Amino acid sequence: MQQSNIDPKALRNALGTFTTGVTIITTKDGEGQAVGLTANSFNSVSLDPPLVLWSLAKTALSVPAFTSATHWNVHVLSSAQQELSNRFASKGEDKFSGLELDKGVSDAPLLQQCTARFQCRTAFTHDGGDHIIFIGEVIAFDQQDLPPLAFQSGQYAVTAKKPWQELKLSSASEALECSYSEDLLGYLLGRAHFQMLGRMQKTLSEQNITAMHFFALSVLAIQDDIGLNEINAHVDYTGQKIETQHMEELITQGAVQQIDGRYLLTEKGHQAALLHISEAKVIEQEMVAQLGEGDVMALKVILKRLIQQTDPGLPDLWANAS
Amino acid sequence: MQQSNIDPKALRNALGTFTTGVTIITTKDGEGQAVGLTANSFNSVSLDPPLVLWSLAKTALSVPAFTSATHWNVHVLSSAQQELSNRFASKGEDKFSGLELDKGVSDAPLLQQCTARFQCRTAFTHDGGDHIIFIGEVIAFDQQDLPPLAFQSGQYAVTAKKPWQELKLSSASEALECSYSEDLLGYLLGRAHFQMLGRMQKTLSEQNITAMHFFALSVLAIQDDIGLNEINAHVDYTGQKIETQHMEELITQGAVQQIDGRYLLTEKGHQAALLHISEAKVIEQEMVAQLGEGDVMALKVILKRLIQQTDPGLPDLWANAS
Repeated sequence: MQQSNIDPKALRNALGTFTTGVTIITTKDGEGQAVGLTANSFNSVSLDPPLVLWSLAKTALSVPAFTSATHWNVHVLSSAQQELSNRFASKGEDKFSGLELDKGVSDAPLLQQCTARFQCRTAFTHDGGDHIIFIGEVIAFDQQDLPPLAFQSGQYAVTAKKPWQELKLSSASEALECSYSEDLLGYLLGRAHFQMLGRMQKTLSEQNITAMHFFALSVLAIQDDIGLNEINAHVDYTGQKIETQHMEELITQGAVQQIDGRYLLTEKGHQAALLHISEAKVIEQEMVAQLGEGDVMALKVILKRLIQQTDPGLPDLWANAS
Repeated sequence: MQQSNIDPKALRNALGTFTTGVTIITTKDGEGQAVGLTANSFNSVSLDPPLVLWSLAKTALSVPAFTSATHWNVHVLSSAQQELSNRFASKGEDKFSGLELDKGVSDAPLLQQCTARFQCRTAFTHDGGDHIIFIGEVIAFDQQDLPPLAFQSGQYAVTAKKPWQELKLSSASEALECSYSEDLLGYLLGRAHFQMLGRMQKTLSEQNITAMHFFALSVLAIQDDIGLNEINAHVDYTGQKIETQHMEELITQGAVQQIDGRYLLTEKGHQAALLHISEAKVIEQEMVAQLGEGDVMALKVILKRLIQQTDPGLPDLWANAS
């Protein structure tokens, strides 16, 4: 295992396992043109004096700008700034086109809507092989409560908090090999689903809305004037079936009307569905408050990938949304 | 916003928004004693020559060891190594106690079960304010397919991949404000749950097992010799209720026997439950293969936190597991 044996591609892969945030670093070149690039080589160095560092490939077009600049800004990107990251990672001419900038301490461009920003004065530069290491003194900084974008093994990522102690739902010392464990993904998904739904139970019960009524109203709130078969096609994935009787109960309640075998929401039905939607949104906001915005986003991202992988071929409920 | 106005605590918080991996860096001191510490200031610098860097507080007890050492090893920790991270982040005397070490290129301790390891020779050290920056040449490295541990805003974290293009479950151009959107957490949880359960549907149908039978068998597989009320206490969170009739159907199928009003699994019932469990585990392994082990772990971590937050006070199903 000598240096000569080091495969750059394998090394890049191995180094990529170290998770990082994503930053855009900006400055002005000698002609006053804004220059910027995406970098994940940022890190903090020192609090007193306040120093940070990042490194730039010696082959980068922006080397002259950064080596002659006295000031540069580091922007820790939020998870909503993936497009901006892509833009500044490419060699495009007009990276700053259309971007609103803030006024900073120096004339280096200061981007908006970032998780954190560090306005720096070059303190030292060091040789770092095929890169130059820039060490900057932080002269101003700010921070917003926006979940940050991360990067891991060549992919964008979002982070989920990992509690200091592993969360156990059961006091049992260990899972039984021969039975369901609390750690089974299917169990966790089911329990999470039913507990979230359970939060709406009080409202639904007060309205005499059963699960089947709820499914039917939810479909009709997105797409109505459809028959029972069409409604059931959207509910099929639940393994449950809405019967004519359920629809008749909704008609009796005044939530639905039937015209030529097709069902439409009445004004009362619309109001009921709106109440469900607003309640579901309130419950989601509670989860954001309790788990953190970044964690709820991470949960949604993973669930969407799982749903896509397990999709039995559901019709697109929103395709003909009314 | 001059340097004098920089609040070190606020700066530390802002710098902490930049996500990092977690490393343990090890060496031997002048007396041959193993020395190691947890650091998240690691980053790659150059591929040719292969250089990495990290920084060490000048006040750290291990400064003499690292400044006199010619070699040190960087271990990118896996998500399973949180305890190890804690151990090496503390000032304990005996950090290496009980750890098996691998033989490396140098005599610097080489820890096991890490996501990646970089064996380095000190190339340069630079002054970095209250820290010393170590730049090392990588002389050997290896990597294992283990999801890495991350660190973000003072907390351990795990990462979930963020697709380059936002995943959309619907072709509709945008969600309707007045109806359910595909982005609603409750909808995503429900659909993920039902689609996962749907994967088991073929097996369950072949066995004439309905959802209610499935819930009952699952509870009895963990804890049997209990009455219907106790079974239902564990199923209550689903908003559904197992009736005597469901239990009688299971008795007719030969999966359950009733003794003094309490229900027990028969051998056939045990076999049926074992089949369900193994199938659920196979489905989970498919998800691990499709989404990645790290993402499934992240999903479980977030679901457990969500379940804990929304727990209506369920009895501990595993507390008296048979």
